[in-house]
Amino acid sequence: MAFTDDLQPTATALWDEIVAHPMVARLGDGTLDVEPFEYWVRQDYVYLIDYARVFAHGAASAPSLEQMGTFAELLHETVDTEMDLHRAYAAEFGISEADLEATDPSPTTRAYTDFLVRTAATGTFGELVAALLPCMWGFNETARRLEADGMPDDERYAEWIRTYAGEEFSELTAWCKELMDEVAAEAPATARERYRDRFVTSARYEYRFWDAAWRGETWTVDPA
Amino acid sequence: MAFTDDLQPTATALWDEIVAHPMVARLGDGTLDVEPFEYWVRQDYVYLIDYARVFAHGAASAPSLEQMGTFAELLHETVDTEMDLHRAYAAEFGISEADLEATDPSPTTRAYTDFLVRTAATGTFGELVAALLPCMWGFNETARRLEADGMPDDERYAEWIRTYAGEEFSELTAWCKELMDEVAAEAPATARERYRDRFVTSARYEYRFWDAAWRGETWTVDPA
Amino acid sequence: MAFTDDLQPTATALWDEIVAHPMVARLGDGTLDVEPFEYWVRQDYVYLIDYARVFAHGAASAPSLEQMGTFAELLHETVDTEMDLHRAYAAEFGISEADLEATDPSPTTRAYTDFLVRTAATGTFGELVAALLPCMWGFNETARRLEADGMPDDERYAEWIRTYAGEEFSELTAWCKELMDEVAAEAPATARERYRDRFVTSARYEYRFWDAAWRGETWTVDPA
Amino acid sequence: MAFTDDLQPTATALWDEIVAHPMVARLGDGTLDVEPFEYWVRQDYVYLIDYARVFAHGAASAPSLEQMGTFAELLHETVDTEMDLHRAYAAEFGISEADLEATDPSPTTRAYTDFLVRTAATGTFGELVAALLPCMWGFNETARRLEADGMPDDERYAEWIRTYAGEEFSELTAWCKELMDEVAAEAPATARERYRDRFVTSARYEYRFWDAAWRGETWTVDPA
Repeated sequence: MAFTDDLQPTATALWDEIVAHPMVARLGDGTLDVEPFEYWVRQDYVYLIDYARVFAHGAASAPSLEQMGTFAELLHETVDTEMDLHRAYAAEFGISEADLEATDPSPTTRAYTDFLVRTAATGTFGELVAALLPCMWGFNETARRLEADGMPDDERYAEWIRTYAGEEFSELTAWCKELMDEVAAEAPATARERYRDRFVTSARYEYRFWDAAWRGETWTVDPA
Repeated sequence: MAFTDDLQPTATALWDEIVAHPMVARLGDGTLDVEPFEYWVRQDYVYLIDYARVFAHGAASAPSLEQMGTFAELLHETVDTEMDLHRAYAAEFGISEADLEATDPSPTTRAYTDFLVRTAATGTFGELVAALLPCMWGFNETARRLEADGMPDDERYAEWIRTYAGEEFSELTAWCKELMDEVAAEAPATARERYRDRFVTSARYEYRFWDAAWRGETWTVDPA
Repeated sequence: MAFTDDLQPTATALWDEIVAHPMVARLGDGTLDVEPFEYWVRQDYVYLIDYARVFAHGAASAPSLEQMGTFAELLHETVDTEMDLHRAYAAEFGISEADLEATDPSPTTRAYTDFLVRTAATGTFGELVAALLPCMWGFNETARRLEADGMPDDERYAEWIRTYAGEEFSELTAWCKELMDEVAAEAPATARERYRDRFVTSARYEYRFWDAAWRGETWTVDPA
Repeated sequence: MAFTDDLQPTATALWDEIVAHPMVARLGDGTLDVEPFEYWVRQDYVYLIDYARVFAHGAASAPSLEQMGTFAELLHETVDTEMDLHRAYAAEFGISEADLEATDPSPTTRAYTDFLVRTAATGTFGELVAALLPCMWGFNETARRLEADGMPDDERYAEWIRTYAGEEFSELTAWCKELMDEVAAEAPATARERYRDRFVTSARYEYRFWDAAWRGETWTVDPA
C-alpha cells in the first residue's frame, strides 16, 4: 500500500476538522468578514518566504538530479512568481507591499515555519517531504470540498478556492504525494514512523494557521 | 555599552511579566497545585533534549577552540548529568523515566525548541547565543527574585528555586551574557538587530512555556 | 574600497597562474589534446551538481527576498538549463549522458565540492558568496584573456571561450562581485578575513581543477 | 551479516595499502625521519578540531538519547582532553602550542576534513558514522599490525603505536563498528550503498593523509 494511502484516514480526520473550522466554513459560503482574511493574507506572505526556504533545502538535499530540478523549479516559481501573485492578491484587500514586508510572524506562523525549516535543515529528505505535504494536500482538499459545496459570491474568496482547487495546484499536490510514496517505499518502518509524525505536525499547524487568523492571534507578551 | 546592558530594559520588562504570571507567583509562595508543575517537569524534560542539541550545534559552529570546549562541556553535562538530575527530580513527583520518555511535546514546547534548533542549525553563532540566553538569564532572574521574596514551604519548589538561583546556574548565566557581549562587540548593527530579535523571541517563549503548563495546553486537533 | 578591489592583487596573481597552466594555455591556442579536455568535461558535470547545491543553500540562507530570488533563478537555470547545455557539449566529444552520470569525482573535484558545500551548509552567507566567487571570476577572466589572445581553430575550444568570456557569464560575474562587495561592506574585519580565506581556497581549487584534468588524476588507493 | 563484516574485505585491502606505505612502515620499524612525522603531528592537530566538530554534529543528529550522550562524551574528551595530550605529544618534537595554532591545513587535510564536516552537516546520521569509522578502525588496525611486528626503539613512535593499539582506542573502535552495524541493520540497500561510499572515501583519505606527510605536501599555488 502506498504510504499516502496509509496516511489517508489520519489525513481525512485532519481535513474534516479544518473544513469544519468557522474561518474556512465562512470563506466557503462567502460570509467571512474581511478582517480575519486580511490577517491570513499577511501571515501567508510571511509563511511563503520560509516555505520557499524549505524548497531550497529540498533542492540542496535531493538524492536525484531530477528531484533537485523539481525543487529548483518550485523554489524559483515561489520566489519569482507566486509571491508577485500574492502581492497582487493582497492589493485587492488594500494591503500594500510595504504592509506585507512589515508583517511580523504571529506565534503560530513562527511555530509552523520554524518546524518546517528545522525539519528541512536537520532532517532527512523524506522528513522534509512529509512536513511539506500537508500545506499542499490540505489546501487542495479544503478548496475542492468548498468548491463542491458551491462558490461564494465574494469574488476574492472564489478566487482563493479556484487557485487551490485548480488544475495546477492539484498537479502539485499529486506530485508531492507521489514523491512521498516514492521515498517511503524504500524506507524502513522507523523512518516511515518519523514521516507520519512530521506529516501530522504540519497538518495540525494547517488547522492552527486558520485558527490564528480567526482569533487575530498576537504574542501574549511584548517587550517594552 | 555591552550588548546585554543594551538588552536590559527589554529583558527586565519580559522577566517582570514572567514573575507576575500566576504559575510562577504560586511556585514562589508555595501555593502552586502539583498538576501544572508535573506538566512543567514533563515538558522541561522534552525541552532539555533539544536544548542539548543547541549546545551541540554551538560546539560545531564555535569560532574558537575555547568556545568549542565550553559548549562541549555544557552538552556533556546536560546529556550525561543534568538529565539524570531531572529524572530524579521528576521521581519526587511520581513521574517515572518511562513517563518522561513517553511525553509528547506540547505546542509551546514544540514551537520553542523548533525555534532554538532552527536558529542553531541555520543561523550564525551569535544568533545561536542570543536564542540560548533567555532560558538561562530568565530562569536565573526568576529564581533570584522568588528567593528574595522568601522560600516556599514545599521542599520541591524550594529546590527548584535553589537550583536556578544558585551559584552554579548564576555562573552559567554570567558566562552566557559575557559570550553574548563578546560576539556582539564585533558585530555590525544589522547583526545585533538580529540578536535582539532572537533574544526577544526566546524570552517570549519563556513566558509561554510557564503559561502552557498553567493552562495544561494540548494540541487543538488530534489525528483519529 | 570595495572588498573585491581589495582582493584584486591576490586574484590577479591566482588568475596569472591559471592562465599560465599548460592545460589552459593549450586550450587557448587550440593545441590541447582531447583526452584531458574530456576529463575536464566529465568532472565539470559532477562539479555542477554540487555547485547547484551551493546555489540552493544560498537561496535558503539569503538575508533578503531579492537575493533569495537571484539564487533561486541561478539554481533553476543551472539544474534545468545549464546541465542540458553541458550534456549537449559533452556529446560533441562523444561523451554520452550515461558516461556523465557514471563519472566518479576525482580527488580534486571531491575536495573542491566538499569545500563548497561545507562552506555553504555551515558558514555564513558571506562565506558562501566568497567561496562561490572564484569559479565565476576565474572562468570569466581566463576566457577573456584567452579571447584577447585570439580564438583557437578548434570550434569546441572556441565555444568554451565564447561561453565564459561572453556577455551573460560576464554579467553573472559582475553580479557575484557586487553581492560580495555588498555583504562585505557591512561586515567586521574578522568576517572579511574569513571571506578572503574562502576566496583564496576556491581560487586555488580552480587552478587544481585544471591541473587534475591535465594529469588525469586518479585516487591513489582503490578498494579491492 | 553485520555491515562491518560486509565491509571487511574492502577495509582489509585499504589497511594493507596503508601499512605498506613507507611513512607507516618506517614509523613501525623506527627508521622514520622526524620531519615527515612533525608534519603529521601538526596536520593531525588541525584535523582534530574538525574531527571534534563531526562529533558535535553527531550529538546534534543522534536519533537516541543514549547515542547523543556518547557523542557528547567523545566531543568533550576530544576538545577538553585529547587536544591537551596532542599538545604535550607535539612538545616532545619541539612543536609549541603557537606552532600548532599557526598550522594551515594542507590540501589533503582540508579535503578530508571538508568531506567529514560536509557529510556530518548535510548527510544522514548513518553517513556520518560511516565517514567517521575509518579514522578509528584504520588507526587501530595500523597500530595493532605495527605492534605485532615488534615495537620501534624510538620511544615517541612506540608511544604512537601504544596509543592507537591500546585498550581505550580499541574499545572506541569497537563502539564505532557496533554503532555502524546497528544503524545499517535497519537501513535499506540504497542507504547502505551510501554508507559504503562514505567509508571508502574516508579510508582513502587515511592513506592520503600519511602520504601527504611523507611528501611534505603544500598548496601548488599561493596567493601573492
